[in-house]
Amino acid sequence: MIVNNKTYQTIWMEGTSVKMIDQNRLPFEFEIHESKTYQETCEAICNMTVRGAGAIGAAAAYAMVQAFMSISSDAIDFIERAREKIKSTRPTAQNLFYAVDRVYAAGKISPEQAKIEALKITVKDIEDCQTIGAYGDELIRDGFRILTHCNAGWLAFVDYGSALAPIHIAHRKGKNIFVYVDETRPRGQGARLTAWELQQAGVPFTVIADNAGASLMQAGKIDMIIVGADRIARNGDVANKIGTLDRAILANVFKIPFYVAAPSSTFDLNCRKGTAIVIEERSEDEVLFQEGIDRNGNKVRIRVCAPEATAYNPAFDVTPAKYISGIITEKGIIKANEKSIKAFLKEQKAQS
Amino acid sequence: MIVNNKTYQTIWMEGTSVKMIDQNRLPFEFEIHESKTYQETCEAICNMTVRGAGAIGAAAAYAMVQAFMSISSDAIDFIERAREKIKSTRPTAQNLFYAVDRVYAAGKISPEQAKIEALKITVKDIEDCQTIGAYGDELIRDGFRILTHCNAGWLAFVDYGSALAPIHIAHRKGKNIFVYVDETRPRGQGARLTAWELQQAGVPFTVIADNAGASLMQAGKIDMIIVGADRIARNGDVANKIGTLDRAILANVFKIPFYVAAPSSTFDLNCRKGTAIVIEERSEDEVLFQEGIDRNGNKVRIRVCAPEATAYNPAFDVTPAKYISGIITEKGIIKANEKSIKAFLKEQKAQS
Repeated sequence: MIVNNKTYQTIWMEGTSVKMIDQNRLPFEFEIHESKTYQETCEAICNMTVRGAGAIGAAAAYAMVQAFMSISSDAIDFIERAREKIKSTRPTAQNLFYAVDRVYAAGKISPEQAKIEALKITVKDIEDCQTIGAYGDELIRDGFRILTHCNAGWLAFVDYGSALAPIHIAHRKGKNIFVYVDETRPRGQGARLTAWELQQAGVPFTVIADNAGASLMQAGKIDMIIVGADRIARNGDVANKIGTLDRAILANVFKIPFYVAAPSSTFDLNCRKGTAIVIEERSEDEVLFQEGIDRNGNKVRIRVCAPEATAYNPAFDVTPAKYISGIITEKGIIKANEKSIKAFLKEQKAQS
Repeated sequence: MIVNNKTYQTIWMEGTSVKMIDQNRLPFEFEIHESKTYQETCEAICNMTVRGAGAIGAAAAYAMVQAFMSISSDAIDFIERAREKIKSTRPTAQNLFYAVDRVYAAGKISPEQAKIEALKITVKDIEDCQTIGAYGDELIRDGFRILTHCNAGWLAFVDYGSALAPIHIAHRKGKNIFVYVDETRPRGQGARLTAWELQQAGVPFTVIADNAGASLMQAGKIDMIIVGADRIARNGDVANKIGTLDRAILANVFKIPFYVAAPSSTFDLNCRKGTAIVIEERSEDEVLFQEGIDRNGNKVRIRVCAPEATAYNPAFDVTPAKYISGIITEKGIIKANEKSIKAFLKEQKAQS
């Protein structure tokens, strides 16, 4: 994607360093963060310098490569510990586990092979997102007003994104579309990252408080909802950013198409249904405090809740398959059920 | 209610001044705001120094009294202009129009009569909220985990509150209850005011992002939802803080009782159904910016959205009657339909 007339990916490797757009500094500062060791890359995943299903997968792949590059080939303990540490950074996104296991297997041959595998993962991430964009665009009619939650844009992947890829393509094709962007508390990825992405691309949008969703749907102002996914169970249940379930149920009640966009790396066949997905609980401080810039442009963290109040902060929720109109994948739009998912992943495997 | 060992109401009159707890300064500062003229009281309603259905009603009543007190009895134009100005401060809360019209009619006799009428309105507000608390308490069983949205506590009325009154009483009776407090973006009345109120009263609670509602309901962690109302149409449709509709629909899907608590002054028989209620759209800045205190305790306003992003900010939504389990009134719990509402208001009128 193009930022300040320069082409960027969300995350990439330079030598033994992993470089990434610092998503904690956006939208107020655009800076590149460098992780020199796999431990630093783990930290960047934990503190969400890099976030989003695909970007987490790429970061984890590169972290695994860093671990292989940093040791002599017989230090099996070190590699095992690194693998565990990378997997423990965040529990919900399937892409992370998928990427680590692939690079781990390749690294047993050589560190070079690990790096090639990581690059293959990121190239596939880019290609898959492009294809998702093309398939998703077919669902978008001229004049559509689309609601999206959180950020499943190019910042959430290596490039292009999942949920925002169809929106970017429809806009570039000249379709007259408008995007309602959920603020997505507590971390505000919609207000901060999706808004920034759409602004960069010139796509018309406005931000809404998360509470305004039902009201807009009731008023007939939403034609379609597209969200991303952090993990999709075998039966089609989808784990995604907290608040996704609310929108899916509301869309169902108001008869608005509700689509999930995700590449094959997001699917977890070992997970029978959504209730088996581990949901990350993050620090209450994400609810109690907010970060932004003051009128002098300084980054400030303020408390927005009553003093001494506590908060409960689940980061994801699980949307049952029955609320999902379809899943936009790199092989087309599939149904959110076991049969369609198995057929899709089989076809995927046969071709890759 | 008791704050710092002293008894307070949310709003009261002293001489020709209206005094009120400054709700824009809470929860970080507890200060009393003084409005010396009806114009200043209008400003306090507009900028939400005083907010909440009942408290707005009391403020409007006192503003009307101020207008009557400030002129010689023949200045009819001045009074008419004042009446229009007070009514134009905020469009959605029925209590405002109800209170202004009652004080206006009384003031035609004398300014003293206007003041007596305003005091009658506030006394009735207090008594009604007490009774709502007693009726609502009967719905709360030991061990209940209750979700509430926005602030319909004593700060939203003259005293006691509507949705929080049953919670306060259940807690004082020794029932083991727990309250999940919706942050209630954009203005955060849950995180700021309800959290502060419950903390003062020692009621166990935690704040959640508005997005966490469906997830908690799905997990079976919510036994009951109680919210307030800004206006209730003849057919039982309820206008309340944006996001109320979302919770009502979700409660319906997850089979959780969803109650609205409101005194008779909130009902608008002239309004046939919810779609006729005027919904206030407030400044986009409420979404784009957040206020809070920095680590030095200074009050700071920060931008939390991408630079140049716009926002759309409807302040209320309308919940269709079909999603409401019952309305907790000062005459008991009634059904959200025309027959029950008319019977209730008839009984009310006969007794007052």
